This record gives sequence, structure tokens and C-alpha cells, in this order.
Amino acid sequence: MPYSYLKPLLDDNGSKIVLLILDGLGGITTSPEGTSALEKAHTPNLDKLANEGTLGQTIPIRYGITPGSGPAHLALFGYEPLEYVIGRGALSAAGLDLSVKVGDIAARGNLCSLDQEGNVTDRRAGRISQQDAAPIIEKLNLVQIPGVEVEVRQVKEYRFVIVMRGEGLDPALNDTDPQETGVPPLKVEAQQPEAKKAAELIQLWIKEAYQALADQPIANGFLLRGFATDPGLPSYEDAYELQAACIAEYPMYKGVSRLVGMDIIEVIGDGPQAEFETAGKYWDKHDFFFIHVKKTDSYGEDGNLSAKASVIEEVDKALPVLLDLKPDVLIVTGDHSTPALLKSHSWHPVPFLMWAPKTHRTDLETKFNERNCARGGLGTFPAVETMSLALAHANRLQKFGA
Amino acid sequence: MPYSYLKPLLDDNGSKIVLLILDGLGGITTSPEGTSALEKAHTPNLDKLANEGTLGQTIPIRYGITPGSGPAHLALFGYEPLEYVIGRGALSAAGLDLSVKVGDIAARGNLCSLDQEGNVTDRRAGRISQQDAAPIIEKLNLVQIPGVEVEVRQVKEYRFVIVMRGEGLDPALNDTDPQETGVPPLKVEAQQPEAKKAAELIQLWIKEAYQALADQPIANGFLLRGFATDPGLPSYEDAYELQAACIAEYPMYKGVSRLVGMDIIEVIGDGPQAEFETAGKYWDKHDFFFIHVKKTDSYGEDGNLSAKASVIEEVDKALPVLLDLKPDVLIVTGDHSTPALLKSHSWHPVPFLMWAPKTHRTDLETKFNERNCARGGLGTFPAVETMSLALAHANRLQKFGA
Repeated sequence: MPYSYLKPLLDDNGSKIVLLILDGLGGITTSPEGTSALEKAHTPNLDKLANEGTLGQTIPIRYGITPGSGPAHLALFGYEPLEYVIGRGALSAAGLDLSVKVGDIAARGNLCSLDQEGNVTDRRAGRISQQDAAPIIEKLNLVQIPGVEVEVRQVKEYRFVIVMRGEGLDPALNDTDPQETGVPPLKVEAQQPEAKKAAELIQLWIKEAYQALADQPIANGFLLRGFATDPGLPSYEDAYELQAACIAEYPMYKGVSRLVGMDIIEVIGDGPQAEFETAGKYWDKHDFFFIHVKKTDSYGEDGNLSAKASVIEEVDKALPVLLDLKPDVLIVTGDHSTPALLKSHSWHPVPFLMWAPKTHRTDLETKFNERNCARGGLGTFPAVETMSLALAHANRLQKFGA
Repeated sequence: MPYSYLKPLLDDNGSKIVLLILDGLGGITTSPEGTSALEKAHTPNLDKLANEGTLGQTIPIRYGITPGSGPAHLALFGYEPLEYVIGRGALSAAGLDLSVKVGDIAARGNLCSLDQEGNVTDRRAGRISQQDAAPIIEKLNLVQIPGVEVEVRQVKEYRFVIVMRGEGLDPALNDTDPQETGVPPLKVEAQQPEAKKAAELIQLWIKEAYQALADQPIANGFLLRGFATDPGLPSYEDAYELQAACIAEYPMYKGVSRLVGMDIIEVIGDGPQAEFETAGKYWDKHDFFFIHVKKTDSYGEDGNLSAKASVIEEVDKALPVLLDLKPDVLIVTGDHSTPALLKSHSWHPVPFLMWAPKTHRTDLETKFNERNCARGGLGTFPAVETMSLALAHANRLQKFGA
């Protein structure tokens, strides 16, 4: 459960909270002259909010820890990420709206290429296209074994998710992906005694599924990883008395939002402005909006600082659409840093902007960027405190003690 | 127990520590042009200390949590407020110097007005005056039942405290205050099996006490709330090897100080200067002085920013009296924020000033206010660390480990 001391203090006053996440927002410069994407971007609207509101910076998981997207979002949502661990398989399944209950298991899969000896020659089957992979993955979906129900669904191109539904299936299983070529896929084995049943069933299914692909010219095998089950997270409604909506374009973020009980809203159109307009359409039905912008992270990973800055500018330009809705609390931050200079996620603190015109404390900082956020009025704090601060600034928390 | 790692490090070197609490000190401005009370106040003495010493800001309980005075002071005293919870009844009793031991129970009471059907018509008996209420409350003090000793004492006007002393009385009891008029007071019931005995005894006492007030024209009933017992806090002497004194004008703060074993010193006169002069009189007998100024909070709750600023100026003006005593450590902070703009306690960080002329580390900040404290050398830290910092700056903590 998110902080249990919050629950008795909750006061559902109908105020509206927006948590706008620019994925991988934080950047670095390794010299005083350098600029991060956020510094490079021309962001008059964000800077106005920064000037009026309060800045800070978050530690996503722990000092020095580079997070994956799953734990980074769990932290932002108030779920201690070292306590609540969502396996990648369960996350991917949730992103596709595939039900994974406790006792079921899910895993991510790649189609791959095998040679005649059964050794992996390409871990991604030549990055086979969406269209070419679809019927092959559908073949896998038809492979069934007694005692369980198996569902296989394409994610994108050669990637798929498998869910095995039964009773008492434990996900303590190793990946079959050997992470190299020239060797055969690994056998699935139970990492704990409880997982013995699941290991046998998955291994049996793999055997039959390999036969089903035996005649394929390229994608004649597959690799599984990230076995997991539903982590049974308490819902946003239960933890915060919030009717929460997720507005995101990528399955992964819908997935983690679904696991905390958010309503997943389909975005009509593309990009930040379309997302903000979607929030407007659902404004009366929800009181918490998680809005996720992915491309800041994607371009950060590409090392494309200018493109990352452009995405930030796009968000800034569309911001009036969101502000016209008159949120009581608007938080703009990232789930982690993805410095273009490093071309990867990183452990660096994440810029954080709190704008709550009735309750924020204006600080001395006037621009929304890494260097000013480090001096902001909220200080440096764990990302898992984000929801407490959001609820407080929305006047949704009563006094603790007399 | 306050941090157990402190205890083996303690070194009673006779140095003097002053913890000056301006209740509800922190304020907010929601725009860059605004000023908080602390910013508005002309405080040359505090600014001089700020310039020489180190600033910072505290999180009273947890991020986003608005504290009541009890937990906020426990945190300043080094007692983790989520672990040590003092019931309001025990706090009020301690403030009046009424003994409440483990096995006893205490509650707060209001005189109220009841109609002929026994429904509450006024929860505060028309805010009956100090003088009019005194004899009625004394009547309650005379109501005794077998097996326990009951003491009832007026707090102010229609408010009183009741202590029931006996054996094995558990305070897990509901309030009798229905929080509305037109309905009868609630019956006291045990919220846990251990409280059954206490529930029966209190209910019996209430019955007899109601008869004693039956002929009163206005205050013909009462409501009880906040049943509690002594939380059994370790004392300042035990935890810190400090002979601590409390210099406060309001019962509540004397109460919480008494619960941690401080000597309660009566202030002769009114206001900060009288409090500082009182500290001077007891300077040789104690080595820790908790000095509490209430009116910053009161005016904050009234939304009276100018009056709050005036109280801060009064403190500033009297400060030389305190400085003439040559404390080794002087901390000036609040227990929480009470922004005049919000007219209530709030969760915002609290400005913190550490001045220890032989040991502090001067930072870049030169003025004592919210925005400069946010950039101070101590950073943003939990209020519960205050005593560790006080002891350290007083050279009262030896090295940890070799």
C-alpha cells in the first residue's frame, strides 16, 4: 500500500490533479557551457509556471540507481519501487489489456532464428516486420496444452506476450533467452520449488510451439523472458480516493496504469496537444490525470538532443490547452533522466515543477531546467513522495494529529 | 526512543542549546511578487544570524503532511512522530500538570447545551465564560464513582480535561461528541476488548455527572473526546543527557514538554522578551532551553499576515537578550508552517536557522526567510533530525566508529 498514513487523512474535495510525465526528461551537461535538452528548449509557458510555482528534483528509486520505466512510474504513483516489483511480463500483458491474475504467469517473447542444431542465429529473427510476424505469432496462440489456457499476442513486430492461465502457477522461472547467438535457447527451470509446476507446463508448451514453427524459413523459434504475475497493487481509488485516468500512447505506460486501477483513455490523434485535448474531454469524469509523453525518452536514447528539445517545445506550446482546464495541481516532471549525452536512462535527479496556484510556495527559481530545479523550494526528494505532495497541494489531506 | 545511535555517542560537556520555536513560522506566497510574514518582517538580528550561520528547511512529519502541534513538536524533540502518538487528552492533561500514568485515561471535554430530549443544541454551551463555567466544572470534579479517582480541571472557558485514575484503564474509546447538533451525545464504547472496563466506568461516571448538571440553565451537559493515556516517552535526560527546560505560555506546549521530561518554567510577564529573560534566570540550572512563541501561529490562522510579521519583529527585537546569554547553539525554526494565506497549518517546509558560532558552517544565504532557507546549507531535511544537529553543533556527540 502507498503510505498508510495518507489513507485516514484523505478528503475527496473534487479538486483536479494533473501529473504530466515527460519520459526521461532529465539531461546532463558535463561542462558549464553545455546545455541539456531542457535548457536548449524554448519553453515560455513552462518557465512562467516555474516562476510562479515551486521547483525541486526527484530521486527516482535511490541515489545512484538508474530505473527502468516500470519501477520509475510505480514510484511516481506512490508505490515504493523496491517493495512492489512488477515483472516485465505482467507489465507488457497489462499494456495489451490481457488479464493476468494471481496464479497466472506472463512473459515477453521474441521470435528468433535457429540453425539446424537448434542454436540461435538471430535473437530477433532478422527484425521481421509487423505484417510478417503476425501470422507466426497467431500460430503460437493456437498451441494449447492440457490444464492451462495459453494466450499469445503480438506487441510490435517480432515481439509478443504470452499469458498462461491456470492454478498456482508461480513465475519464479528463468529466461530462455541466452543473450547470445551460437547457443541453444535455455531450458525453463523453477528458481523456487513453488514454480516447479509452471516450469513443467511452460517447457511442455515450448516444445509443442517449436514444432508449430518448425517449417518457418526465418522465425522458426522464440525466446521468452521476464516471467511474472499480477503484483496485486492497491488501486488509486483505494489508496488515494482518486478517480484516475491514464492518457498515454505507449502500451507499457497504459499497462502500469492499469495495474493501479486507472481508467485507460484512448488518445485521438498524436502528440502532446492531442493528449491534452483528450484530458479535456474526460475532465469531468476524473480527478487525477496521468499524462505521458514518450518521445523525450526515445530521442534521449537516440542521443538526439535537438529532437528531445523539440518534443519539450511541443509540450510547452500545447500547455495552454491543459491550463485552460484550470487544474488545481499541475506537476511536470519525468520518470527518470535520459541524457542525450549518455544515450540511455540514468540515475541523475529529475527536474520537478509543482504548480498549484492556490497553495504552492513560490521559490527563487524562474526557469524550468535541471540547474534551477536543483535549487528549488521543494529540495531534492524521493519520487515516491510525488503523490503526497500532489494530494497536499490539492488540499486533499487533512491534518495529522492534534 | 529517539535515535538509538545517539545514546552511546553522548558527551555531556555542559554546553548550552536553545531551541527557539516560532509556532507556525513558515508562510507561502503564491506569486513571485508576494511576501510571506517572515519576508515582510524587518529582522536585522535574525538576518545577522542567518548571514553568519547556516539555513535549511524541515519537513515536519513527511512530505505533504500537515501536522498538528503535538506530532510537530515530538518531531522537533527527536521522537519519530509516526511511532510516538500522543492522544489529545494526555497532552491536555500534561499541560495542566495533571498526572496521567499508564493505566489511567484522560480526555478533553466541552460543556454543552442539551434540550429536554437530551439532544445537543449547542456543542460549546454558548461559549460560556471562564467565570461562569468554573463552578460548573468544579461540580464535575466532585462526581466520583467507586474503584477510580476522577479529576476534572478547567482549561479555558467551557473547555476542561478529565483524568480517571485506576488500574488497567485502556483509552481505546470513542468520542462522545457527535460533531453536530440535534442529536444526543454518543455513548462511550470500547474500541478494543481491553477497553471494556474503562468504557463501563466512564459511562457510569457520565451518567452521574449528567445528573449533577441537570439543573443548569445553559451548560447542562458535556462532550468528551480524545481519550488517551501517557505514551511513556523516554525522557530528554535519558535520551540526550540534557537537563531540559520548557519556556512556553500555552498549556499544550508545556504538556508535550512535560511528557519528555522537561522542567516547566513559569514565565513572568508576556511575550518573547519575558521568555528570554526567564531563560536567563534559569541559565545555570539547565543546558537545553525549549522556548515557544505561540502567536505567529495564531495570527497565521487568523490570516493576519501583518500581525504575524509583528510577532516575528518582536522576537527579533528581543533576541539580544537571548544572545547575551551566549548559547553555544541557537536554533530558530517553527514546528510547521501556518501561511496567513491559507489560514491554517500546512505541509510546506519550515524555515530553519542554525547558529552555533564555534561550529556552524556559514553558507551563501544572508536572510532568514522561506526562499533563502530553501537554498540553505543544511538543505531540506526531516524535522526529527533537529536534535541530532543541535547535539552535534554543541559538540555533544562523539565520533561514531573508529
